[in-house]
Amino acid sequence: MTKKKKEIRRESIMEEAARLFKQKGFGGTSMRDLAERVGMDAATMYHYISSKDEILKTICFDIASIYITQLAEIEKANTPFIDKLKALVRLHIHLMATKGAEVSVANNDWKYLATESLAEFKDLRSQYEKGLSKVIEQGIQAGELEEVNQSVALFTLLSAVRWVELWWRPNRGISLEELEDTILTILFNGLGKKEA
Amino acid sequence: MTKKKKEIRRESIMEEAARLFKQKGFGGTSMRDLAERVGMDAATMYHYISSKDEILKTICFDIASIYITQLAEIEKANTPFIDKLKALVRLHIHLMATKGAEVSVANNDWKYLATESLAEFKDLRSQYEKGLSKVIEQGIQAGELEEVNQSVALFTLLSAVRWVELWWRPNRGISLEELEDTILTILFNGLGKKEA
Repeated sequence: MTKKKKEIRRESIMEEAARLFKQKGFGGTSMRDLAERVGMDAATMYHYISSKDEILKTICFDIASIYITQLAEIEKANTPFIDKLKALVRLHIHLMATKGAEVSVANNDWKYLATESLAEFKDLRSQYEKGLSKVIEQGIQAGELEEVNQSVALFTLLSAVRWVELWWRPNRGISLEELEDTILTILFNGLGKKEA
Repeated sequence: MTKKKKEIRRESIMEEAARLFKQKGFGGTSMRDLAERVGMDAATMYHYISSKDEILKTICFDIASIYITQLAEIEKANTPFIDKLKALVRLHIHLMATKGAEVSVANNDWKYLATESLAEFKDLRSQYEKGLSKVIEQGIQAGELEEVNQSVALFTLLSAVRWVELWWRPNRGISLEELEDTILTILFNGLGKKEA
């Protein structure tokens, strides 16, 4: 089997695992459940992945890596802070909508990571939250954002988009782009009507 | 023992139960755990409450009743729709901050209600969401709210306040009133700076 083919199989195992973890919890999912779901016998499946712990680690760090990479790119872009913040909120909505199961696992099941990975993951999370908080602080200082409590702003933004994973589907009458635009309008312009 | 005293004991059992359910889940909490936590033997505790199911029902319906009662009062008040909506969002923040464990149980453990209660609870929830959605619709029609997708507005508002339960404590440097004001500012005026 080519390397490419192996990689594709591995990814589809990861995707099914994320769905199962989300549905039954990390603790409630067995490797037998997973093998059944991907239609392989367990022995074949172990050709692609080594353990449940490895799967969890891969899912959590893949998501963390997307956030951290995007943050780094956005930080160095030459754009107003408010646009950086909007781009980050858009990224959150986008990931919730397109990788909902993985994001859910990274949000809820990271606590089951093995000790070493756990510390590393917490560091990444804290690094990301600090980066996001910094963008908010800079936006306020530059007069681009309202002068509100930074922590309240940070958590309100992060929390406001979390329903997307549970609700948005491509066929619910609103495109992903419209969804992103609408949430950004509410959070940055406010739901109250502005004078024209 | 007076009726009043019995009621107070019952309430403190309910409060401890909510904390335990939140911490260990409804399924993971035993009546023995609860008796230990409230410092009674199980036989004495059963003088105040009849079962774990009864406790869950009481917690879920008490919270639902607060929301429904407030919604009814706010609906009939003679105020702009935007103020009605703000009052409801404020109520959500307030309950998250002051009855966090109960709200969390009503949000997460309602699915373990016994069959009859379950149907009734789902009805109340749907009634409340419809009422809230109606206020948003009326606010848009009256030109008090931006013309955004109603469902997106509804879920964004409800989701935006859910972190409060996990984070806000009276000693974290921000009063409950300031917290409410800040979140309302973000959601209704927007985080983007308005021209003075």
